[in-house]
Amino acid sequence: MNKSNQTEDLFEYALRLGDDSLILGHRLSEWCGHGPVLEEDIALGNIALDLIGQANAFLIFAAQLEGAGRSEDDIAFFREATEFKNVSLVEQPNGDFGKTIVRQFLYDSYAYPMYQALCQSSNETLAGIAGKAVKETKYHLRHSAEWLIRLGDGTEESHNRVQHSLDQLWVYTAELFEQDDLSTRLAAQGLAPNLELIKKEWEAFVYDTLKEATLTTPSSNGYMASGSRAGRHTEHLGHLLSEMQILARSYPGASW
Amino acid sequence: MNKSNQTEDLFEYALRLGDDSLILGHRLSEWCGHGPVLEEDIALGNIALDLIGQANAFLIFAAQLEGAGRSEDDIAFFREATEFKNVSLVEQPNGDFGKTIVRQFLYDSYAYPMYQALCQSSNETLAGIAGKAVKETKYHLRHSAEWLIRLGDGTEESHNRVQHSLDQLWVYTAELFEQDDLSTRLAAQGLAPNLELIKKEWEAFVYDTLKEATLTTPSSNGYMASGSRAGRHTEHLGHLLSEMQILARSYPGASW
Repeated sequence: MNKSNQTEDLFEYALRLGDDSLILGHRLSEWCGHGPVLEEDIALGNIALDLIGQANAFLIFAAQLEGAGRSEDDIAFFREATEFKNVSLVEQPNGDFGKTIVRQFLYDSYAYPMYQALCQSSNETLAGIAGKAVKETKYHLRHSAEWLIRLGDGTEESHNRVQHSLDQLWVYTAELFEQDDLSTRLAAQGLAPNLELIKKEWEAFVYDTLKEATLTTPSSNGYMASGSRAGRHTEHLGHLLSEMQILARSYPGASW
Repeated sequence: MNKSNQTEDLFEYALRLGDDSLILGHRLSEWCGHGPVLEEDIALGNIALDLIGQANAFLIFAAQLEGAGRSEDDIAFFREATEFKNVSLVEQPNGDFGKTIVRQFLYDSYAYPMYQALCQSSNETLAGIAGKAVKETKYHLRHSAEWLIRLGDGTEESHNRVQHSLDQLWVYTAELFEQDDLSTRLAAQGLAPNLELIKKEWEAFVYDTLKEATLTTPSSNGYMASGSRAGRHTEHLGHLLSEMQILARSYPGASW
């Protein structure tokens, strides 16, 4: 494979990584100043900032690879929904606090082993960003898993609400591990983790934790969403982007 | 002065300190995920979280002093506007990025010497919270002063916009140093800083920085707002509180 094809692959991969963090970080930031409890407001806010920081690093890398003069902010704020390559799990609305925790738990359980493996990437920039992200994600996962257990194994109402959110969000989990030509090529070159292996780690941890939380693991045999890595998203992404992008688009290039 | 009167004084003072941080932190958190530049979004978000953390510490102390079974969250989310004791500077709307920076600069220039002095408080809890806050505020002040200079001494448009915001916000600066029976008693007992001395430090630093930013220091001889420490606020606080409190009030006692 020639150099320029690999650069294109890495650019696309940096978008996938950056967009997951950017969109989830934006979703969490919607809680900012709106959490019902000050301590939890701060915790979610810190997680949001970690994610936006990760997005920033990946999108700076993407901008360098592209070499077209676009900045990381141009990439974040001046793309349309179909150009975003995040999994649709992270664009799902916050719902109540329990739903936010379920979404976070399902994502963190993927991100943690994924970043662990990405630390071994043959690309130094990706390995470096992953090295920082894995530490942050370890804390995020502990936070979301602890809350999941507390809510699942809590009152009847908290249990039922979390189970309902889990059933709703489960259909978006297959996309985390969806393979395509790009992911296969990157894994073969040692640039990106093998998603099959990440999936095995995810399943082991998620099934265990759901059991501890006295929650029922939904079936993966029914409808499962597909195609978000290729830009096919749920309707929620468009609304999120119009919120996120309006200020930057209203004042292009300005720091106002 | 007897013990219980001093406890009441400290409770009221903890509210003043906590409310300044809480309201300013909430205002800044409105930028979360809406900044036009990812890096700056993260910086403002971090400052917001520091402030909400300070508020949390002061309001926990207030709740202990009150001893009425209210938690810090009850105090944050279940008071009316007239019961808030923050200065009205911090409740002023964000406006554009430059106005947010001017508000932050005017506040940080007060908070930094105030926390430095509060570290010497004869009350250990206040001194302890101040010890952490002074480190955070030092960074906040560097951030806002650098931006103020960059915008003031920037383009003609950025200069004019920042000068306009400065003129608008200046009338809210006298309240930072407004003395009443409470502040006089606390300072006399070595519990709180002498606001006259803080004012001198504030003036020296603010005038110097405005000069470096090529901005004109507004006059303090005209109308200056007054009374916010006694609960007399601008109309903006009510709107902010309804935003901030709606979730906690909709689900009282719940962590959803």
